[in-house]
Amino acid sequence: MKLIAFDADDTLWVNEPNYVDVKQKLCDLLAHHIDEETLSSRFYETQMRNMNLFGYGAKSFILSMIETAIELTDGAITGSEIQQIIDTGRQLIDYPIDVLDGIPEVLETLSKNFDLMLLTKGDLFDQESKIARSGLGHYFKHMEIVSEKNEQAYERVLQKYNVKPANFIMIGNSLKSDILPVVHIGGHAIHIPYSVTWIHERVEDEQLVGKSFTTLESARELLALF
Amino acid sequence: MKLIAFDADDTLWVNEPNYVDVKQKLCDLLAHHIDEETLSSRFYETQMRNMNLFGYGAKSFILSMIETAIELTDGAITGSEIQQIIDTGRQLIDYPIDVLDGIPEVLETLSKNFDLMLLTKGDLFDQESKIARSGLGHYFKHMEIVSEKNEQAYERVLQKYNVKPANFIMIGNSLKSDILPVVHIGGHAIHIPYSVTWIHERVEDEQLVGKSFTTLESARELLALF
Repeated sequence: MKLIAFDADDTLWVNEPNYVDVKQKLCDLLAHHIDEETLSSRFYETQMRNMNLFGYGAKSFILSMIETAIELTDGAITGSEIQQIIDTGRQLIDYPIDVLDGIPEVLETLSKNFDLMLLTKGDLFDQESKIARSGLGHYFKHMEIVSEKNEQAYERVLQKYNVKPANFIMIGNSLKSDILPVVHIGGHAIHIPYSVTWIHERVEDEQLVGKSFTTLESARELLALF
Repeated sequence: MKLIAFDADDTLWVNEPNYVDVKQKLCDLLAHHIDEETLSSRFYETQMRNMNLFGYGAKSFILSMIETAIELTDGAITGSEIQQIIDTGRQLIDYPIDVLDGIPEVLETLSKNFDLMLLTKGDLFDQESKIARSGLGHYFKHMEIVSEKNEQAYERVLQKYNVKPANFIMIGNSLKSDILPVVHIGGHAIHIPYSVTWIHERVEDEQLVGKSFTTLESARELLALF
């Protein structure tokens, strides 16, 4: 039996643009302290430094925004300004989910003939909340939320469901998280690029040499493929 | 086949005392602004208000500490003081895991005859990190981290592993999360109380009327039971 797994953020619904938007609001809030370029690069440094402690997701993003703001103002930022940062960050948690074009139709059709899995990385609480708000949960027989999508994580999931890599198809927007690790363990991968990619998810062209996977322009093309 | 599941925090290792300790440090930091009792009750209010947005775990706890400090100082707290709060909160993330007495011996013995599951609620990233630091991961055939341990969550896990409630045994320190929901769906529950219980996990005596479960004084007593 084939198992078809979908990534969630920026594959089923809009995600990264919300993070870009919140980061822009942080730039605006701190505009009288610091220029945008310095803020952006320091913020990314803080995020990477905190990744091993906090992981992905909205709460981690908010904490990194706060730390960056404190650092860049030498601790002079006030509690009231930090509350504004937290309030801005809250929009990452309860915004309405914007499902991508064609997704409900594709899931409706594929779920009739295949076992579908939602397989996403990130903060458990964030992701469960997004699944619930998306209204797409009922199309998926299985859901797995992992802290990182690397080869070990995919191997654990396939073992758990007793599925051979040759019978596993992963569909997602991230070459780094959805495509390369799946190809490396002998699975099939379908890449549907999204217009905005977080710098942390980007890969160098050389990493793609010799790798075999399918790229589609939109999810609708999955209907012709299966 | 029987499935024996263990809760993690305050069942396998010390957890709540670390949170109590960090909260005490918050009280000390803010001692010149506010008395301890007011801080405690306002902090709990903030935690409960944020629960639906942030869930359980260290990052959520840190964000609630920051918000409480801002509120109680009317925004006058400085960035530097908030950084101290964050740094204090970090000790919830990378402290050494203190495994409870008898646990390795019990897991070693039970894992020879039963499939063991680690079944815990909370922040995915926190919990995976604690499992790794505990060195106990290899005793568990299955691991499930859920955002809330209620009847629905237990039913989903049992369905996923195709286990009947009658063949399921849950062991844990929380009457609210480990015992009552399992008894309610027809499973077996073994309560091993821990010396410190977060107020959010406490239940009223009346909720226990007519409920059947076993209480042990320590994990070592599991060896005689199985």
